[in-house]
Amino acid sequence: MEAATPLHAPAPRVVGILGGMGPAAGADFVRLFVQACTARMEALGIPVRDQAYPEHWLAQVPIPDRTAALGDARAGAHQPGEPLLQAMGRIAALGARTVAIACNTAHAWHGLLQQRFPQIEVLHGMREVSAGLAARGVPAVGLLATRGAYAAGLYQRELALHGILCVLPTEAERDLLMRGIYDGVKAGDYALARRHFEAVARALRERHGVGALVMGCTEIPLALDAGPDGIELVNPSAVLAEALARHAYARDQPPQSAGLLTMR
Amino acid sequence: MEAATPLHAPAPRVVGILGGMGPAAGADFVRLFVQACTARMEALGIPVRDQAYPEHWLAQVPIPDRTAALGDARAGAHQPGEPLLQAMGRIAALGARTVAIACNTAHAWHGLLQQRFPQIEVLHGMREVSAGLAARGVPAVGLLATRGAYAAGLYQRELALHGILCVLPTEAERDLLMRGIYDGVKAGDYALARRHFEAVARALRERHGVGALVMGCTEIPLALDAGPDGIELVNPSAVLAEALARHAYARDQPPQSAGLLTMR
Repeated sequence: MEAATPLHAPAPRVVGILGGMGPAAGADFVRLFVQACTARMEALGIPVRDQAYPEHWLAQVPIPDRTAALGDARAGAHQPGEPLLQAMGRIAALGARTVAIACNTAHAWHGLLQQRFPQIEVLHGMREVSAGLAARGVPAVGLLATRGAYAAGLYQRELALHGILCVLPTEAERDLLMRGIYDGVKAGDYALARRHFEAVARALRERHGVGALVMGCTEIPLALDAGPDGIELVNPSAVLAEALARHAYARDQPPQSAGLLTMR
Repeated sequence: MEAATPLHAPAPRVVGILGGMGPAAGADFVRLFVQACTARMEALGIPVRDQAYPEHWLAQVPIPDRTAALGDARAGAHQPGEPLLQAMGRIAALGARTVAIACNTAHAWHGLLQQRFPQIEVLHGMREVSAGLAARGVPAVGLLATRGAYAAGLYQRELALHGILCVLPTEAERDLLMRGIYDGVKAGDYALARRHFEAVARALRERHGVGALVMGCTEIPLALDAGPDGIELVNPSAVLAEALARHAYARDQPPQSAGLLTMR
């Protein structure tokens, strides 16, 4: 309730969230980010108040379906690259210095976005998740994802780089996941989604004995809040939101004008 | 999962959400807006998919405390008017045609924002809530709000215009509400917030016999999900999010270029 007083610490960085894929997942990402900022302030000893949060912008823009585009390499309006770049350009114009992509499958375009916006740090969800699992010594995980994410090898590559075994569902199980994501969460039928996700989670556990599952599509945690039979669920959105909060409050940040001239 | 195909219906309007007051409430407003859009599409017979949601931008910017400013009319950096106008200007530049303010107390600056941005429709939360209550024939409500919102008469004025009696807490109860909002929700202590909000809700019910309470601060519903003793809780964020979704899918919209020339 006190009036705003100038902060003695440097203001946190402006950050952006590239969402809309789908919009419910984007909204949930902001919730997780705000929670992560509160935790970060508590850890850093910064009094928690509205004005101490980083300025952040959420862009929820219509982006063509990522999995469909990965299955059809032709150029055209069904490709998400151009709309992703346009949204990123507008987030950059708002002053964001670090950006998180609130969609796993859209990380297939991470390299393009990072290359075209070298002045912005585009976080990489799979790298953050894999590094976190490796730091905890997790030897193997099961992966729940879209067909697009499996085909692009997004998680498989990063997990392998961190020495973590990644077990995958069968073709029939991938169909179940896609139905849970598209006919379930994206269409508003959360009960159907949950049933399909739980069936695949149980199958991976029984077949491979993995104790943890990565929910590698932002829609999955919206319908699956706990793992069946005590399986640990890893929510990459929470991991990425924590990484974004860490960057927002990073103390080693150069002055903004110098930062804009620094290439990675 | 189908590839994006051109929509035959006109694309929904681009809309903006002015948030950060506080950030958790802004995040929750986006969740409510996405839910309201899903319901709107179902009502209009539009197939629900990611690309059918309106483009929307959430600005979570640091805005000086609204209640503190309303208690200190001097010009200065503690006044929210200028930062609100700046954020609104950036939302306007992103192409938004309708904007919702995700903070009740900030509606004290609604007139300023609407006057400076005549090309944008700035929704008015209290008007939406009062019209909704009047349509349902509700005769009287209790009001839970900040000291700033009480002092500015934001709800009292609109409820009176709609012929609805508005009962207010005592000074001691207003202190409890402020502690619930600032030491509770804004500081991350939801249990404390809930205890204080429930105590005031019960007191208003016992003293005035009102059957419904308006949660006239966006932080209150974050800690109070059900009314004690069966009191109906009205969540203005949900009402405003529905109004924003209604405007986003409005069919009577003029072409965007003509719309920009139309003054209200």
